[in-house]
Amino acid sequence: MQEPLPIHNNTGDAEFMAQALARARSVIGRTSPRPPVGAVVVRDGAVVGVGATDPPYGPHAEVNALRQAGELSGGADLYVTLEPCCVTIHTPPCTRAILEAGIRRVVVATLDPNPLVAGRGVAQLREAGVEITVGPGSAEAQEIIRPFSTFITRHRPHFSAKWAMTLDGKIATYTGDAYWISNEASRVWVHNFREEVDAIIIGSATARLDDPQLTVRLEPHQHWYPRTNRPGGPLRVVVSTHGDLPAHLKLLQPALANGTCIIVGEGAPPENIDRLRASGAEVMRAEVNQEGLIDMQTLSSLLEEKGLMHVLIEGGSQLLGRAFDQRLIDQVAAFIAPRLIGGHGAPSPIGGMGLSTMKHALTLANQRSQIIDGDILIQGLIVYKECV
Amino acid sequence: MQEPLPIHNNTGDAEFMAQALARARSVIGRTSPRPPVGAVVVRDGAVVGVGATDPPYGPHAEVNALRQAGELSGGADLYVTLEPCCVTIHTPPCTRAILEAGIRRVVVATLDPNPLVAGRGVAQLREAGVEITVGPGSAEAQEIIRPFSTFITRHRPHFSAKWAMTLDGKIATYTGDAYWISNEASRVWVHNFREEVDAIIIGSATARLDDPQLTVRLEPHQHWYPRTNRPGGPLRVVVSTHGDLPAHLKLLQPALANGTCIIVGEGAPPENIDRLRASGAEVMRAEVNQEGLIDMQTLSSLLEEKGLMHVLIEGGSQLLGRAFDQRLIDQVAAFIAPRLIGGHGAPSPIGGMGLSTMKHALTLANQRSQIIDGDILIQGLIVYKECV
Repeated sequence: MQEPLPIHNNTGDAEFMAQALARARSVIGRTSPRPPVGAVVVRDGAVVGVGATDPPYGPHAEVNALRQAGELSGGADLYVTLEPCCVTIHTPPCTRAILEAGIRRVVVATLDPNPLVAGRGVAQLREAGVEITVGPGSAEAQEIIRPFSTFITRHRPHFSAKWAMTLDGKIATYTGDAYWISNEASRVWVHNFREEVDAIIIGSATARLDDPQLTVRLEPHQHWYPRTNRPGGPLRVVVSTHGDLPAHLKLLQPALANGTCIIVGEGAPPENIDRLRASGAEVMRAEVNQEGLIDMQTLSSLLEEKGLMHVLIEGGSQLLGRAFDQRLIDQVAAFIAPRLIGGHGAPSPIGGMGLSTMKHALTLANQRSQIIDGDILIQGLIVYKECV
Repeated sequence: MQEPLPIHNNTGDAEFMAQALARARSVIGRTSPRPPVGAVVVRDGAVVGVGATDPPYGPHAEVNALRQAGELSGGADLYVTLEPCCVTIHTPPCTRAILEAGIRRVVVATLDPNPLVAGRGVAQLREAGVEITVGPGSAEAQEIIRPFSTFITRHRPHFSAKWAMTLDGKIATYTGDAYWISNEASRVWVHNFREEVDAIIIGSATARLDDPQLTVRLEPHQHWYPRTNRPGGPLRVVVSTHGDLPAHLKLLQPALANGTCIIVGEGAPPENIDRLRASGAEVMRAEVNQEGLIDMQTLSSLLEEKGLMHVLIEGGSQLLGRAFDQRLIDQVAAFIAPRLIGGHGAPSPIGGMGLSTMKHALTLANQRSQIIDGDILIQGLIVYKECV
């Protein structure tokens, strides 16, 4: 006698996928240049294995979950936040591991934006007789892998821009003072955001004026899952055409120089480069453009080559302006503090050339607004209309 | 046998005061230089008379309400949003009318900030045997008369500043284009705000670049109570040191010139003044400061002498900057539109000299934030710390 077909249980799918998504979230910022993925093995309605992507070159989420489930994987269902890979990139394809484990059904939140996979992983499994469902949790899954999507399709990091400005649109006073524009709760939010990214980048003017540490400073109970691939937190990057950063900067002291990268122009004096290297910082050279400034596309390529999927631009006005002009801002987190400072000479968040007409202004998708202790935080994605 | 003392009924007080406050709100912007006030006469738990402040030099709210109640006022309760006046300014004191009408009890939302009254009205009534309650609805009542409070205590108009800026803090592109930053629903909000004020003021750069009409444009069903004292809407004021505004501006055309006032510097060429007057606009001269610009304190005094209690500064960056530097911004309504335009040369809302350090930034009291169709509107009061 044949067994009755299983009833398709949508409620269960959502619940188990939520667990897989939680695992994926826990490794955001810890997997580059791989996407953060979560997986859950379910047998007879019970979770028997969970896993998330290891840092390179450990196993993918599916393999970790299958290993935990062990022999219980045979005939079980697998929930995975991203389509299983079907190619060998450092590790064997996950589709093979799934078939070998005897998984009966695979529920995938979203397909892999990697053109090498892009539906082929699912097709391979389906051809091998595995039941496939695609879609549960797709919006959240796509959000989790957004930096990876940019990285794999545009061949550059996903650039997020963060700034805090006064209600009259300034990121500092005319003298350059910016301590503090946003409130303490907003600054904790920023440190949590830093936990998600692979690198934080600033311009040399901000390095001089603010002398920041660019570290993730959270209370012990606020810290995330350990960042085993980069224990010091996101890479700290400073763009300095001439490499003439003052030696007293916090970023160039022994505690921080390791994990700090200074990007200088081709023509930067060798003695400046030597001095920066002597501090312990990494120094990379980049092409300069006609204006004598580091070319932003070259900069972007350098960061991509380092495997940095998600780079947070924390200012200032010049660097954000140049990134904006080169269409290199993908995502925005802007704090507006209810304070006024005035001043024709006070900088605004995004300098550069800018756009000439309001009708061409860039708009936000997935806009979210929230109030953090009186500050307003507006987040969204920049959607570039591709040239036809 | 003596009658039992009446039970103090707070619920009733709140309800009747709410009716009086609604009446007061309905005449905001229609009473200058008087405060907008509402009054309700209640007898045996029923409203027998309502009234609001007439434009100068008609009756005050109390007198209008008492007249409507007629003989029913004898032994009735009067709810009034502002302490009744006890002095003759164009009309006889309301305290006298209240006593003559035989009112038993007066409920006052807030005392009169006018130093000539300031508790004396209430004291006079109490001495005459009228039962007095002060306080129900005080927060809203104070908000309604805030422009009057500034006007009567600081001897200048209450200045509100309104701007719409992009998420990167710009009020126009680097070319000066500002059409449109905020969305349509936000602009309807602005027209409703214009309904509340006595005058709208802009600088000459904004007059040239935007060529605005500065009128209240609302659908017929959105219009407020008629503005009998100024049927054309708020006075339109342009600050132009040299009086050299282009003749083609909408504000100088026959439809708008009447109700438009150009404030020029002492040294403005007579031929410019003649040309402006020939358009139908009013021209006033003001002192200029050492920089050759119209002195903002003189400007403020001119507006006060015209009886303008509430003046809305709609930009641009220069005029708002000069008002900010002179501590002449009392209230703010800032729209933040989720758009980015970038540009080092794009103006920010408040220019001027500005403050040098963040710790001296002006903060907002009574802060309110709301989302209007995706735009964020932040409102608040500027509280100036008085010099000790």
